[in-house]
Amino acid sequence: MLEKIDLSRTVEKGVYKEAQKDYSARLGVLQRKLKDAGVPVIILFEGMGAAGKGTQINRLIQALDPRGFDVYASNQATAEDAGKPFLCKFWTLTPEKGRIAIFDRSWYRKVLIERFDRITKKKEIPEAFQDIRSYEKQLTDDGTVIIKLFLYIDQKEQKKRFKRLEESKETAWRVTDDDWARNQHYDKYLQMNEEMLENTDTDYAPWNIIEATDKDYAAMKILKCVTEALEREMARHAACAGEPKAADTKPELEQHYQNGVLSGVDLNKSMTYEEYKKKIDALQERLEVLHSEIYRRKIPVVIGFEGWDAGGKGGAIRRLTSHLDPRGYRVCPTAAPNDIEKKHHYMWRFWNKMPKAGHVAIFDRTWYGRVMVERIEGFCKETEWKRAYQEINEMEAHMANAGAVVLKFWLQIDKDEQERRFKERMETPEKQWKITDEDWRNREKWDQYELAVNEMLVRTSTTYAPWIVVEGNCKYYARVKVLSTVVDAIEEKIREMK
Amino acid sequence: MLEKIDLSRTVEKGVYKEAQKDYSARLGVLQRKLKDAGVPVIILFEGMGAAGKGTQINRLIQALDPRGFDVYASNQATAEDAGKPFLCKFWTLTPEKGRIAIFDRSWYRKVLIERFDRITKKKEIPEAFQDIRSYEKQLTDDGTVIIKLFLYIDQKEQKKRFKRLEESKETAWRVTDDDWARNQHYDKYLQMNEEMLENTDTDYAPWNIIEATDKDYAAMKILKCVTEALEREMARHAACAGEPKAADTKPELEQHYQNGVLSGVDLNKSMTYEEYKKKIDALQERLEVLHSEIYRRKIPVVIGFEGWDAGGKGGAIRRLTSHLDPRGYRVCPTAAPNDIEKKHHYMWRFWNKMPKAGHVAIFDRTWYGRVMVERIEGFCKETEWKRAYQEINEMEAHMANAGAVVLKFWLQIDKDEQERRFKERMETPEKQWKITDEDWRNREKWDQYELAVNEMLVRTSTTYAPWIVVEGNCKYYARVKVLSTVVDAIEEKIREMK
Repeated sequence: MLEKIDLSRTVEKGVYKEAQKDYSARLGVLQRKLKDAGVPVIILFEGMGAAGKGTQINRLIQALDPRGFDVYASNQATAEDAGKPFLCKFWTLTPEKGRIAIFDRSWYRKVLIERFDRITKKKEIPEAFQDIRSYEKQLTDDGTVIIKLFLYIDQKEQKKRFKRLEESKETAWRVTDDDWARNQHYDKYLQMNEEMLENTDTDYAPWNIIEATDKDYAAMKILKCVTEALEREMARHAACAGEPKAADTKPELEQHYQNGVLSGVDLNKSMTYEEYKKKIDALQERLEVLHSEIYRRKIPVVIGFEGWDAGGKGGAIRRLTSHLDPRGYRVCPTAAPNDIEKKHHYMWRFWNKMPKAGHVAIFDRTWYGRVMVERIEGFCKETEWKRAYQEINEMEAHMANAGAVVLKFWLQIDKDEQERRFKERMETPEKQWKITDEDWRNREKWDQYELAVNEMLVRTSTTYAPWIVVEGNCKYYARVKVLSTVVDAIEEKIREMK
Repeated sequence: MLEKIDLSRTVEKGVYKEAQKDYSARLGVLQRKLKDAGVPVIILFEGMGAAGKGTQINRLIQALDPRGFDVYASNQATAEDAGKPFLCKFWTLTPEKGRIAIFDRSWYRKVLIERFDRITKKKEIPEAFQDIRSYEKQLTDDGTVIIKLFLYIDQKEQKKRFKRLEESKETAWRVTDDDWARNQHYDKYLQMNEEMLENTDTDYAPWNIIEATDKDYAAMKILKCVTEALEREMARHAACAGEPKAADTKPELEQHYQNGVLSGVDLNKSMTYEEYKKKIDALQERLEVLHSEIYRRKIPVVIGFEGWDAGGKGGAIRRLTSHLDPRGYRVCPTAAPNDIEKKHHYMWRFWNKMPKAGHVAIFDRTWYGRVMVERIEGFCKETEWKRAYQEINEMEAHMANAGAVVLKFWLQIDKDEQERRFKERMETPEKQWKITDEDWRNREKWDQYELAVNEMLVRTSTTYAPWIVVEGNCKYYARVKVLSTVVDAIEEKIREMK
């Protein structure tokens, strides 16, 4: 993509000044419209060293209202990010609806600088491109506008700029040995940039090449790219204003899933208290030792719990954690999203809670809400929950590829057992708070939920993140199955590493 | 405080089990009440190494609903925290209303482990104690319950536990050389702990000493301390239910401040465009160089802007930032607090935005809203804004002590000039969005604001964080004064460091 670019383009000062005034006025209006429409925007700056990313970002933001954007720079991975997928950090930085996030270098670091510096291994590259494409697809599907700018200068110009920076003691420190290495092997690094551009130039997030030899020309083109991309988005937005809202599109559930996974679960499985006590004690002790192992080996562990109301999630989680060191695990309950969470991609709040290396995150209800309650209650559009299966699989694959153990438990009970437990809660004073009218209302939708769960179990059980359906009518049996599954999965992971 | 403690206390298994059941039931009820009442709770665990903090935290949280608490461990300062006051990180971790934050080691690290390891210098200790007291006072004044637990074992017991940990390969890594050093110099470290306890045992945040030789005894006493502290708080809360709300207590403004600072400002000061252009260009270039200097010298810079509506804050900020590298500064606009922010101490959202080492944070409106708009509109209680002067001074002192340049600008214009600017905004299409009905309403309260501002300027202008009143009727004059003040302050800071 870079071969045909004419780097000698320039613009006269007067023309630039005029254009800048014009674009700034349009951007001011656009920014307020985007805010009202709740559109999140990502503008990212990539390109050759000394191509002027900092200067150009500053020129661009002079045209923007500072109440509406954030600039993210120096986004190298930190110790906190170790053991997480490289995109995790960027998931957490995605802008909320109506805001603009500007990145000075971005997730492309992984396939550019870090590739050149051999931090990223060659065999990781195709997967990284795939991850980037699916990340950008998920965001744009959700309504984010992504504007990608590649600032391009040639080897000679770069060398000249490095030298100029080195001449002054105030700026000399900004040119590093690594910068010089990339200048000396300019062609090799250029080739990596070419590959990156070819592999990530998509219809939903295309690249804009900015000829950056002349700073005014570059600034003008950047203003043009950004303004026009945002104007296109606002036009599209206006055209879609009549689209059906989430609640209007409540779909029929597919009867195809009627006799699915759940109908085949043997709920007669049970265990005596004595047998339970013996097994659970042993498993808890084993898990305590393994917890220390995963900490030392820096293995992240993600465990999700879903199931019918009163299915025994809380009790299972309590048995799972009772012998663990609280510094190494966290129970993340999932309630309805708060104001801030609603302003982001539905996955955002879960990305925020993914465990760091050597830690365990236990989710009491999970991202699967999207394809269960949100689907059934019409809290999201049909296209949104249908897309979610793949989005979820991709997210779990990212975690697994980063070395995590990922397990999902479905706690299955039958309708009679649920009724018994609901009644018990109502009759026991200290358990009354656990049962609400909503629980009874959800129960009326049992059949709809069963279809949705069956579809979910089929579409999202993967080799790297399997669903485990737990026979839950007998709590003793269920808890032992949960703990032994976790123990086995961790032990297997450790064996793999040896 | 430790001398008279009897470390041989134990409890029988049966008694403990009974007590645990009782306290757990009470805690369950209390946790829901605290949530409804919106009371934030901090429980912190300090004490000797191997005293069992992890185990005890885990026992405590088994009695709590995981939807209502967070555990913070390994809270050592990271690279991100460099250049910030040591309490900054803990400000950002304070729990929101109705939630519990549990700390495994805390801000006391600074005066315990880090003192022993000589990371904290001896001369810093008295100031650190003072900072801790004022931090805890600010939080409890705002309604937070702080429960401080000190887990105590003697030298012999500690040695025994270290040895036991070292016997097994799974746990040996947990005992470090530093742990052994503190055991070998137990008396010296004990003395530091004594001093800490004496200096930070206050009526608003008292210490509880937990005899931790017998784990069941310790667990029982912790449950007792926590339960009783929360019950006391709920009783106090119930008793205060009839207290006047914020809006009921709108106070008279003190006429004493009628002919205050603002009335003495000479608004005739002005500058021609030519003079302005020459000066501003030179100042911007100088600032660009200094920006690079403060980055290299890791100086944080905090600049706050306040002033009348249409006083010229936006224009001044634009001139201040136009030549800066966007990777090194951030403009933080201050709007009405969002849902999450409202659930914290009013200072929380500002602590979250304090600059890291070598960075500049520019606040467009600031924490002074507390003593201006919140005071005048009755958004907070009289006790709250009265307390805020000291709280603000303490916060700014923390930043200054951590090496920051702290400047606050008040952009002063007169009432006629404001009217002229309002009208201009209404008549210029692209400026119309900048003017709202609220601006006109605020204008009607000019006299009240003037009194509040006069009091604020007096009470919060300090040597370490001065207010600069900027004569703002002439924008050129004002902008040059802002930039030259910033340049001078940074240059002076750099000179001090040499």
